[in-house]
Amino acid sequence: MNIKIILRVAGLLMLVEGVAMLLALVISLIYGEPDTFGIALASVISIGFGTLLFLLTRKAPHDIGKREGFIIVALVWILFSLLGALPYVFTGAIPSYTDAFFETMSGFTTTGASVLNNIEKLPHGILFWRALTHWLGGMGIIVLSLAILPVFGIGGMQLYIAEVPGPTPDKISPRIRQTAASMWIIYVILTLLETILLWIGKMPLFDAVCHAFATMATGGFSTKQASIAFWPSPYIQYVIILFMFLAGTNFTLTYFALRGKLKPLIKDEEFRYYGIFTLGFTIIIFTGLMLMAPAGVEETFRNSLFWVVSIMTTTGFATVDYMLWPPALVVVIFAVFFFGGSAGSTGGGLKIMRVVMLLKNGYYELKRMVHPNAIIPLKFNKHVVDSKIMNNVLAFAVLYIMIFGVSSVIFMIFEPDMATSMGAVASALGNIGPGLGSVGPAFSYSHIHPLGKWFLSFLMLLGRLELFTILVILSPTFWKK
Amino acid sequence: MNIKIILRVAGLLMLVEGVAMLLALVISLIYGEPDTFGIALASVISIGFGTLLFLLTRKAPHDIGKREGFIIVALVWILFSLLGALPYVFTGAIPSYTDAFFETMSGFTTTGASVLNNIEKLPHGILFWRALTHWLGGMGIIVLSLAILPVFGIGGMQLYIAEVPGPTPDKISPRIRQTAASMWIIYVILTLLETILLWIGKMPLFDAVCHAFATMATGGFSTKQASIAFWPSPYIQYVIILFMFLAGTNFTLTYFALRGKLKPLIKDEEFRYYGIFTLGFTIIIFTGLMLMAPAGVEETFRNSLFWVVSIMTTTGFATVDYMLWPPALVVVIFAVFFFGGSAGSTGGGLKIMRVVMLLKNGYYELKRMVHPNAIIPLKFNKHVVDSKIMNNVLAFAVLYIMIFGVSSVIFMIFEPDMATSMGAVASALGNIGPGLGSVGPAFSYSHIHPLGKWFLSFLMLLGRLELFTILVILSPTFWKK
Repeated sequence: MNIKIILRVAGLLMLVEGVAMLLALVISLIYGEPDTFGIALASVISIGFGTLLFLLTRKAPHDIGKREGFIIVALVWILFSLLGALPYVFTGAIPSYTDAFFETMSGFTTTGASVLNNIEKLPHGILFWRALTHWLGGMGIIVLSLAILPVFGIGGMQLYIAEVPGPTPDKISPRIRQTAASMWIIYVILTLLETILLWIGKMPLFDAVCHAFATMATGGFSTKQASIAFWPSPYIQYVIILFMFLAGTNFTLTYFALRGKLKPLIKDEEFRYYGIFTLGFTIIIFTGLMLMAPAGVEETFRNSLFWVVSIMTTTGFATVDYMLWPPALVVVIFAVFFFGGSAGSTGGGLKIMRVVMLLKNGYYELKRMVHPNAIIPLKFNKHVVDSKIMNNVLAFAVLYIMIFGVSSVIFMIFEPDMATSMGAVASALGNIGPGLGSVGPAFSYSHIHPLGKWFLSFLMLLGRLELFTILVILSPTFWKK
Repeated sequence: MNIKIILRVAGLLMLVEGVAMLLALVISLIYGEPDTFGIALASVISIGFGTLLFLLTRKAPHDIGKREGFIIVALVWILFSLLGALPYVFTGAIPSYTDAFFETMSGFTTTGASVLNNIEKLPHGILFWRALTHWLGGMGIIVLSLAILPVFGIGGMQLYIAEVPGPTPDKISPRIRQTAASMWIIYVILTLLETILLWIGKMPLFDAVCHAFATMATGGFSTKQASIAFWPSPYIQYVIILFMFLAGTNFTLTYFALRGKLKPLIKDEEFRYYGIFTLGFTIIIFTGLMLMAPAGVEETFRNSLFWVVSIMTTTGFATVDYMLWPPALVVVIFAVFFFGGSAGSTGGGLKIMRVVMLLKNGYYELKRMVHPNAIIPLKFNKHVVDSKIMNNVLAFAVLYIMIFGVSSVIFMIFEPDMATSMGAVASALGNIGPGLGSVGPAFSYSHIHPLGKWFLSFLMLLGRLELFTILVILSPTFWKK
């Protein structure tokens, strides 16, 4: 284990975080609010600490080994949250460090679970920093899922990369840096576009920027306590639905689509199922609501679609409180907790690609029983899926469900209500935001026991890094020579 | 599809069922109770119908194809329950046919979920028939899991057969019939032994026989409304714990052990984990109870052990009501719902072997990430597990969880309480018996909506036949030429 290179990379990235805080500082200065000093102090500490680490490790070797890579990814996420919590604490916005850490981890992992009960009271600099943690986390995930995690054999994108149709000259550059760059461009363009569209819909510019950050990262932090319900405008809600859906779409496909090539998008199997699942769940909930709690057709449809997209993409923005729906529909929404966005998007959860592969594999297993001597390879996007990848996907799903089950039991120490415990755990693990019961959309996480907040923070990180990164580090085999 | 051979086998087995009813008739005659006519009528119908089918299909071909096999297995289980419900209806013990079918399916699948609220009032002939459905179902499972299902590529025993240590001269005969015969002998011996031991403990002989039937089948029907709580004697409860544990043990290993060869038992990986899981959960619940709801040490230990063994083996006998425990411990017990007995036992659920393989595979996946170029084959009982078998186990687990999830949502139509719905579904699918909430150990299933009862009956069958048999028949690929 080469500790120097780990610290050097960590130092560099902490410096980057400190610089990012300067953006929040600028906002604070523009609005002339009393949070300036706190943000500045946090920025100075981050930059100073990062620079120090960077300079102290000048003699570090240049190449990062596999094991160092795992440590760096996990460590950076933790350090980012540890430092990112400082602006909240120094400005007094969130006095408790546990709460501030939870809010920051929730921000960077694009979960969107909040401890705040009076968001409107916060100064603009802090609100901006809060939204920025989402946006940076979302961008980080693009880099991670595309460039870093696949190197360790992790992540749905690895599969996607292997599966990108070969013969077309239009296929995204195989060079990872270039691909990552074009994905960033999409990320920035869509963020800008959403900001403008929200602004046209009469959302104040500041709120529009913050909501665009939170949407494109599939985060879910709002600048309002009531979340999107604060803006009853159907226009604003449909814009947010559209961009949540885009944020949960594979960015490579969006890249093609924006360049006028719709074929890869339409032909993509994951995108098709993403559409089918979204539509299917919307129809179920819409029908259920119309039968059991009838209201205006358009409004009911919008609420159904909003929640399905918000949960499926793991964003977690809220309009109406789904806990007030008939219980059966609450459980339908809870089922959506276990889907997630597309591979190569900022969405978390199991991911559509995995869900589809699991369903296909189950059906293929039946086929294999009917025709035991036939060789029936599983295909995805018209390419045969290697049995090693399938085993990885299956192992991921089983571990995900086991971790969900065991964590739900553990979390009942803090929240004895079963639904609340399951909701909080599934929400944290899937990087969603709202849960069930006392952590439903109408409530914050402020009342959770401090230890419970650390536990959920851990689950957010576990889910964000697709389980394996953290589990590998925690396994004895990783530390054996 | 050769319908004649299907009907011929079905007819033969219905005849067997009718003859089995004659045993209940004998009991009824001994006690001279008014249920004689109803049981006799049901027996005559079964025998007559079976004989008729058998005679009408004399020209059927002799060899059963794979597809016919699937149909026969599913059909026989359904026909058995359809006819097996008749004694209840004809004697007026359970007037509603839906209820009687539920009770019979619950009996044959060795689930043990009951619609009865006044069991003691039933005549002895009916009580005996009720216990006998368990015992026949348990025996059926031995034959199925050993002789029939593996031919279709289904069942944990297939793996076991492939994995039986090769070089020992003592290994159970590879000839399936002989193996099945020796397992039946164990089944009968253990049933007799438990009857005698319960009788020594001053349980009346009739109750002892019925409880031995229910124990060895991992069924759970009691002759008393209070289940085992009716007999507070620690001796009786420990005897039942012991035999539940044995009924959840691979019968082949018990066969060796009874012949004085303990080595295969001790060396068996599944048995070791079975012991570890049982002990582990007992310690967790015992500690939790002592901390949160302290009572006598021996009594608390016995209650903890009783429930862990009762649920793990999917028997479902009850002593204290676990719904009165602290919620966190209820959820621990609910976690045990997802384990199940050993392969080659009468226990249902996921089965210990699968759970262990899932855990191992998850850990091996981490190993593979740390050492991506090393070939790390998964071993069970010191033999390498073929990737096809591993995929089958993984697909099984994923389908099991998906069916559990989807069914829990559907069942909320009948029982809006989430815990009740999840408990009822997990209990039916795992062939356990008691669930959570309003179907907890203190309650029966009588209040469930008739459609809900048919739904649960379907899940019992689905679980008992290890999902694939039923799913294969329901899949379009099965019916394609």
